[in-house]
Amino acid sequence: MNIVIVGAGPAGSLLACYLAGRGHRVAVYERRPDPRPRDDDEGRSINLGLSARGVKALTDVGLIADIWPLTVPMRGRAVHGPGGKVTFHPYGTSDDQILHSIRRRDLVTKLIDHATEAGAAFHFGHKVVDLDRDRPALVTEHGTVPADAVVGADGAFSTVRTLMQRGAPADFHQEFLSWGYKELTIPKVPDYHEALHVWPGGDDGLIVTHPNLDGSMTATLFLPAGRLAAITDPEAFFAERFPDALPLMPDLAEEFAQRPVGHLVSIRTTPWHDAGKVVLVGDAAHAVYPFYGQGMNSALEDCTVLDRCLAAAEDPAAAFAAFESARRPHTDVLDELSRRNFVELREQVRSPLHLLRKQADLMLARLLPGRWVPLYTMVSHSTTPYADALARSRRQDAVLGWTAAGAAGLLALTMLARKGR
Amino acid sequence: MNIVIVGAGPAGSLLACYLAGRGHRVAVYERRPDPRPRDDDEGRSINLGLSARGVKALTDVGLIADIWPLTVPMRGRAVHGPGGKVTFHPYGTSDDQILHSIRRRDLVTKLIDHATEAGAAFHFGHKVVDLDRDRPALVTEHGTVPADAVVGADGAFSTVRTLMQRGAPADFHQEFLSWGYKELTIPKVPDYHEALHVWPGGDDGLIVTHPNLDGSMTATLFLPAGRLAAITDPEAFFAERFPDALPLMPDLAEEFAQRPVGHLVSIRTTPWHDAGKVVLVGDAAHAVYPFYGQGMNSALEDCTVLDRCLAAAEDPAAAFAAFESARRPHTDVLDELSRRNFVELREQVRSPLHLLRKQADLMLARLLPGRWVPLYTMVSHSTTPYADALARSRRQDAVLGWTAAGAAGLLALTMLARKGR
Ligand SMILES: Cc1cc2nc3c(=O)[nH]c(=O)nc-3n(C[C@H](O)[C@H](O)[C@H](O)COP(=O)(O)OP(=O)(O)OC[C@H]3O[C@@H](n4cnc5c(N)ncnc54)[C@H](O)[C@@H]3O)c2cc1C
Ligand SMILES: Cc1cc2nc3c(=O)[nH]c(=O)nc-3n(C[C@H](O)[C@H](O)[C@H](O)COP(=O)(O)OP(=O)(O)OC[C@H]3O[C@@H](n4cnc5c(N)ncnc54)[C@H](O)[C@@H]3O)c2cc1C
Repeated sequence: MNIVIVGAGPAGSLLACYLAGRGHRVAVYERRPDPRPRDDDEGRSINLGLSARGVKALTDVGLIADIWPLTVPMRGRAVHGPGGKVTFHPYGTSDDQILHSIRRRDLVTKLIDHATEAGAAFHFGHKVVDLDRDRPALVTEHGTVPADAVVGADGAFSTVRTLMQRGAPADFHQEFLSWGYKELTIPKVPDYHEALHVWPGGDDGLIVTHPNLDGSMTATLFLPAGRLAAITDPEAFFAERFPDALPLMPDLAEEFAQRPVGHLVSIRTTPWHDAGKVVLVGDAAHAVYPFYGQGMNSALEDCTVLDRCLAAAEDPAAAFAAFESARRPHTDVLDELSRRNFVELREQVRSPLHLLRKQADLMLARLLPGRWVPLYTMVSHSTTPYADALARSRRQDAVLGWTAAGAAGLLALTMLARKGR
Repeated sequence: MNIVIVGAGPAGSLLACYLAGRGHRVAVYERRPDPRPRDDDEGRSINLGLSARGVKALTDVGLIADIWPLTVPMRGRAVHGPGGKVTFHPYGTSDDQILHSIRRRDLVTKLIDHATEAGAAFHFGHKVVDLDRDRPALVTEHGTVPADAVVGADGAFSTVRTLMQRGAPADFHQEFLSWGYKELTIPKVPDYHEALHVWPGGDDGLIVTHPNLDGSMTATLFLPAGRLAAITDPEAFFAERFPDALPLMPDLAEEFAQRPVGHLVSIRTTPWHDAGKVVLVGDAAHAVYPFYGQGMNSALEDCTVLDRCLAAAEDPAAAFAAFESARRPHTDVLDELSRRNFVELREQVRSPLHLLRKQADLMLARLLPGRWVPLYTMVSHSTTPYADALARSRRQDAVLGWTAAGAAGLLALTMLARKGR
């Protein structure tokens, strides 16, 4: 098949690897310039947490060995409590239960190189502006590109999605979080470099950091968007809200002034495909708030599922339909989980009850290895489909509820018996 | 102010009455041709149920006396049960608790004439294709129209909304019902002309009719969209599902083939306005499934609220913000109520429990006049804001729950006491 992919982000460039690897003719059109390093480059790029689903997909296309050297392991959460106390919570019970911090640019570069070797052609600086759904063909500012199928891997504000769904009875849910974010740099962190650091500030902010290869960390400050935009003296703000983070950020004032406020969007929609001619993957099909660290991982997993569907189905129409029905229930659940985790990240040191639950969960996982798996572990360290993970966690919780009720009942009986004596 | 309104539907043309009446310079741009009757006209138009909120708005602009002669009262529901039995349920306890069937075209014609007299200018056949948010100005195929403020009254698939929200962090929820509809004609109905007729078919369809001035009725058949599109022999379908409706529709086969399948959309979004320069009203701001018969009524009520906000506020920016905060919580609740009523309409003869509740509700309304008001009565026959109506109904239900629990408790005690003897 002659397949045209819009977008050379994680999803688009991984899909190019899969499809070129299967012998399809693949061309990728990307609005931005080639991300591969050039001389005039300052080299800034966001970093992302790679976890089991992403690792699985990269293993699939034979790329994981090339990726490892570009990652920094995150072995657990380093939680900065009030008063500056840092507690380390390991992510799991074994060494494959960790996350891996990687620069978006490094990952995408590897994927593009790999796909190019497999025969895919990349066209950078080509913004897609229109779509002919019937042929199908896409239109860039440089001309019309016919294809057998068009893939929209063009992110949360997908142009392909808008054009594909225009005038069609499509469901579409777009929600912006009332919180925005800003990226800041921590040149050197004194303790726990191999960790994801969190400053949970309840309603007053949240900082999450990912480590970089050079020993620095990229910190993301989340705050209600209005308050974030209103900060005129960032050092005063940090001195009040995150006093222990302030000394870690020598360039705070300058960076704060330069960097834009980012917005966070959640998108759920259907259909993901049209008549075997157009299909969406990654953020174009489903975008989530980043608090479970699964946006890119689920985008990569999409490619694995779509590749399987294309290989198994009679024709693209059947493959795309199978892809959406196999996948959407799970990404809908991921949306839900990502919302919940926002509260969890913000509140974790404040709520002793929550910590207790978390500890019970981990304890049970140790006592009943393989039989009791915490939800976080299933989502981040396994490839159990998201909805199945949630369902299993609910069953586990029900058991925990039973047990707790049983224990309380026994306790009550014991006390009654004592009184009776 | 120089105000440009996009769309001459119920909302746009009523708002033109309000604003021209207050001395603003008003121009309305409407994509379709002038709806006012011409010689070459076949005169088909959908009819809608006008209720208290719409009546209030039309009274406000001094138009209701001109409207009454164009309406047919609907004094209650005529429910067609299985076996063809028709039961009549009056809408309320007094004569102002009825609905009024009116042709969309008749209503809009009166509004346009009235607004024109008050000084508004209407431009038909002018499709708006672009919006300059900063000036602001709108662009039609015939040129650019500058204004102090642009109002998007251009319906559920509002172009103004899309252009106003482009690139902005807007929440947007669009959902298509899996059911579609088709409009059919009943030339003459044997009984209860002054009623809204319902054939509740559970999962297998729903027919709702509104009476016309000429003694005919317009019937709307609702059915899962796929099944509706798949019907090749409508007479056979009616013979099986709605045998008692079949003889009322002599032109069924022909009409069924000619008329398109309609789709039903629900839209919730925010913001409704931008910087005092653009604002949305009616279906452009909130579209609901039609099962509570409140879409147009709420669109008309919007105009009343926006007119008040414009009169009271310092500047348009404050007025538009006040309008959205005053109004959106209520239209969000209407969305919820309209979804629920879909189930209610379909299931009403099938569920005896539901009928019992409904009867208890009406009985209590009669026993406690003014103190117990059924939700349907508040929504359709009053101008109590939707969310307030729902809150009050919940309080009433809580009391009913209490009473029922109390009664059950008493009963149980009585039985225990008897046993004890
Ligand atoms: C603050 C933040 C932190 C995050 N942290 C994590 C994390 O730790 N772990 C994780 O798994 N995920 C994380 N994510 C989510 C992750 O970034 C996304 O889910 C992921 O990038 C989606 O990949 P994609 O390829 O589908 O889309 P994108 O990465 O958005 O790529 C889309 C590509 O399409 C191109 N494009 C767009 N429009 C056009 C057009 N019209 N023509 C041509 N090209 C076009 C764009 O330029 C872009 O290159 C985070 C997100 C944010 C905002
Ligand atoms: C089957 C069905 C039954 C219904 N029954 C009822 C009922 O009984 N009671 C009730 O209250 N409501 C009912 N409704 C809902 C009601 O029809 C709508 O809520 C109402 O029409 C909304 O009015 P509006 O003026 O906001 O939008 P619309 O009526 O949609 O008017 C929008 C206008 O804008 C014009 N326009 C659109 N785009 C452009 C553009 N780019 N440039 C210029 N002009 C443009 C359109 O041509 C149109 O004239 C029903 C709806 C349906 C589908």
